[in-house]
Amino acid sequence: MQAQPQRRGRKRRGLDTPASRRKADYRQLRNPFPVMSVFSDDEAAGMHETALRMLEELGMKVLLPEARRLYAAAGARVEGEMVFIGREIVEAALATAPRSILCRAGDPSRNLTLELGALAFQPGAGAPHATDLKRGRRPASARDFTEFTRLSHHFDVLQMMSPSVEPQDVPTNLRHYFTMLCQMENTDKFPFIFARGTPQTHDTFEMLRIARGLSEAEFAAGVHAYTIINTNSPRCLDIPMAQGLIDFARGGQMSIVTPFTLMGAMAPITVAGAITLSHAECLAAITLTQIAKPGAPVCYGTFTSNVDMKSGAPAFGTSSHFQASLAAGQMARMLGLPWRSAAGSASNINDVQAANENQLGLWGCLLAGATVIIHSAGWLEGGLSVSYEKLVTDVEVLNMVAELCAGAKAGPDQIGFADALSQVAPTGHFFAAPHTMERYTTEFYQPMVHDYANFGTWTERGALDASCRATAVWEAILSADPQPFTPPDRLETLRAFIDKRSAQGGAPPES
Amino acid sequence: MQAQPQRRGRKRRGLDTPASRRKADYRQLRNPFPVMSVFSDDEAAGMHETALRMLEELGMKVLLPEARRLYAAAGARVEGEMVFIGREIVEAALATAPRSILCRAGDPSRNLTLELGALAFQPGAGAPHATDLKRGRRPASARDFTEFTRLSHHFDVLQMMSPSVEPQDVPTNLRHYFTMLCQMENTDKFPFIFARGTPQTHDTFEMLRIARGLSEAEFAAGVHAYTIINTNSPRCLDIPMAQGLIDFARGGQMSIVTPFTLMGAMAPITVAGAITLSHAECLAAITLTQIAKPGAPVCYGTFTSNVDMKSGAPAFGTSSHFQASLAAGQMARMLGLPWRSAAGSASNINDVQAANENQLGLWGCLLAGATVIIHSAGWLEGGLSVSYEKLVTDVEVLNMVAELCAGAKAGPDQIGFADALSQVAPTGHFFAAPHTMERYTTEFYQPMVHDYANFGTWTERGALDASCRATAVWEAILSADPQPFTPPDRLETLRAFIDKRSAQGGAPPES
Repeated sequence: MQAQPQRRGRKRRGLDTPASRRKADYRQLRNPFPVMSVFSDDEAAGMHETALRMLEELGMKVLLPEARRLYAAAGARVEGEMVFIGREIVEAALATAPRSILCRAGDPSRNLTLELGALAFQPGAGAPHATDLKRGRRPASARDFTEFTRLSHHFDVLQMMSPSVEPQDVPTNLRHYFTMLCQMENTDKFPFIFARGTPQTHDTFEMLRIARGLSEAEFAAGVHAYTIINTNSPRCLDIPMAQGLIDFARGGQMSIVTPFTLMGAMAPITVAGAITLSHAECLAAITLTQIAKPGAPVCYGTFTSNVDMKSGAPAFGTSSHFQASLAAGQMARMLGLPWRSAAGSASNINDVQAANENQLGLWGCLLAGATVIIHSAGWLEGGLSVSYEKLVTDVEVLNMVAELCAGAKAGPDQIGFADALSQVAPTGHFFAAPHTMERYTTEFYQPMVHDYANFGTWTERGALDASCRATAVWEAILSADPQPFTPPDRLETLRAFIDKRSAQGGAPPES
Repeated sequence: MQAQPQRRGRKRRGLDTPASRRKADYRQLRNPFPVMSVFSDDEAAGMHETALRMLEELGMKVLLPEARRLYAAAGARVEGEMVFIGREIVEAALATAPRSILCRAGDPSRNLTLELGALAFQPGAGAPHATDLKRGRRPASARDFTEFTRLSHHFDVLQMMSPSVEPQDVPTNLRHYFTMLCQMENTDKFPFIFARGTPQTHDTFEMLRIARGLSEAEFAAGVHAYTIINTNSPRCLDIPMAQGLIDFARGGQMSIVTPFTLMGAMAPITVAGAITLSHAECLAAITLTQIAKPGAPVCYGTFTSNVDMKSGAPAFGTSSHFQASLAAGQMARMLGLPWRSAAGSASNINDVQAANENQLGLWGCLLAGATVIIHSAGWLEGGLSVSYEKLVTDVEVLNMVAELCAGAKAGPDQIGFADALSQVAPTGHFFAAPHTMERYTTEFYQPMVHDYANFGTWTERGALDASCRATAVWEAILSADPQPFTPPDRLETLRAFIDKRSAQGGAPPES
């Protein structure tokens, strides 16, 4: 087809360029899907009431003395390691937690505003193993972490970085230097930091401050990084997690609080019971951030699925997981806070089960109105591995969701009575209609791994399934020359900082 | 775990049995998902207006003289094969089309009421090829049709039968006897009939009347079967399709009108333009049913996706397909009629692409509020094959959607403050809590093909992907003894009817 008529048509009608008509902005998404509730408002209110009662009567076990002191100073009753938190303390904390959080990336075009109605995706996170069809499943390495950082950077639809895999070949006292440097070298997206004790947290804050070229005051005045805080369900907040809540709050950086609960195991077997427990723990953690520093950036969160009651094994992408996301969304909306949910798969390879689980979990999050959807691409084995191929095939789905975020129009130009409908005779075709010629290069999403060839052509090309084709996609991305994202002089300063701190012994994780 | 505490718990609290607490009724579903619109109400009204204008000014080409006479008798202007239908004719037809249709199955427990808000699934339909991992891809045969009939019967979540594949080894003048007898032998679900000319239609109506043991008047008074009517887009109604609309309307049986349109090929490239065309054709076809017999059972329908503009190949499960379903839902709700949409996949095998496309298309239909979702399981290659394994893996997803239709409760019993939340110490587990013991056999959906084993166990078991495991599922279903669904005396009468009609030469399809 010729591009010529297209250009003329555009001029004649003064339309936008074809590109701007279709192109979705994958960097800042708003959730276009209607919000779904699984419980009545009264039922949701009953869960919130029960969670407040739990914090008052059953209490949280808090292992960090400093955190217990903070709770006590705010009026909570402390008995040994148990902290009993009155609802007035929780309510005061909820009043100061921000409803909207501006997350600053290395490039301002990648800044994110997290609030109800916004939508951000993060790839699979925290796995001990990496897997791909070329090299097989293995303990994750620094190379894997670097490659996942580059792949996650490549796809605009993954707006937030994740701690994809554990680089197990890097000593734990130095690992945080490696993961922060790797992010500063390979991406300008909003970065992730593990909360593994104050020394590591302060090291990484310092590195990020250097990389962004900020004074200490400037750094503390903006949200430049985030961490994920898991509780030890049921009802326990351990030392590094409590310390992380305090350190990130005081440093002005964001905590995403996420009780990880499996219904029937570390949580009640029902969606209602599990989300009530998760909600109580979340309230306790959010409260600690606001006691540490009122107004500290914090997201509500949940990750609740069920176990297989025959084997006790975790399951993901189930109808129970879906309902748990919906229930958590109801609680988050009651609080008015931005919040995270999660997709994911229990499958051992990137197969039909992996695809179906991840997408079912994804729709649960989308209809729940989740602000941040974690593990939305690449996560296998319930988090024990991240797959290069699954990252690609899941991003194909996320891209199409991002296209849906862009919406569509049905004005006279789009309906096309004059340019299309009245131009084609019965049983004719629209390939050459002016309406088509104007739009054919831009109207539809072009897939990167989905293949529309017919059976014969596909067979001639080697009969490769989507997962096999995905290998070529990630290989092509990684074969490109890495782009520098932090100026050389700052990288030099960063490396000098790392050398100095390494010579001092680094900072082992705390537990 | 012991079942004993469970039973005691139930008696104590007077709860339902655990089975009834969770078990979803897969036979009659209501759509629990919020309805989503892609266009504003004004835009949708503009599309409807444009469709009415198309029928008045551009007209439909109608190849069947009897249909043209009917349109003319209702006041339409006929010029040669072109029929120009005034909006008052369309509006009169829409006034008599039923909003709710009771579809009668062989077993009343499988009856369906099709209306806005109801939800029914139909497996992949109309493919020339069958494929499975044991026997490969081949032209479909009578054996394949029989096996798909048995498999479709097996899964409660497939409430309607489909013409799964063409049994190409059965002569076309006798094929309708085979497909109807096969359905009467192997299922008591709501059956499908192809509209391939009046002689075949009357033959199959007669067979269904015999099988159900009904008088002619009783048969005509109820909806006992359905057909799918495709237009020849753009703007043409061919002979067998027009004849089918008339014959099914007069026989009191249901037509589901479905313009099958690909944006950029036989329809405008935009969602707005394509659905406006589809809507106009649908209005013309619905109008013909109501002229033929006011009150005749008819469903609105659409199947609109896009082509790949690089190759012209059809694509399914795309963001454009999703938006087209949403747009069609807006039009159907404007009319108030039950309606069908479709999932589907362009993939050549049951792989990650096939799973992701089918599920994305499915969510488009679910959020569009479709009453009947066709091709919801098994459909590959854009309809050129139906896969045994994909039928199984897609049904796994449909089962979980059916579980979501059942909803969940969050009353005090489900929240479980007394029985669960206050029973477990911090960092403990809920496996043995009374609340868990009461529910562990029934709380969660048990998958048939999804596997939650860990990597080591899964590897020891042969490292089979979900599609390979699905082979064992369909083999087990087919290895069971077939159950008879029609009394032997009626089957004998049916066979005698077929013998007589076959000796007379059968009834070739009309075109």
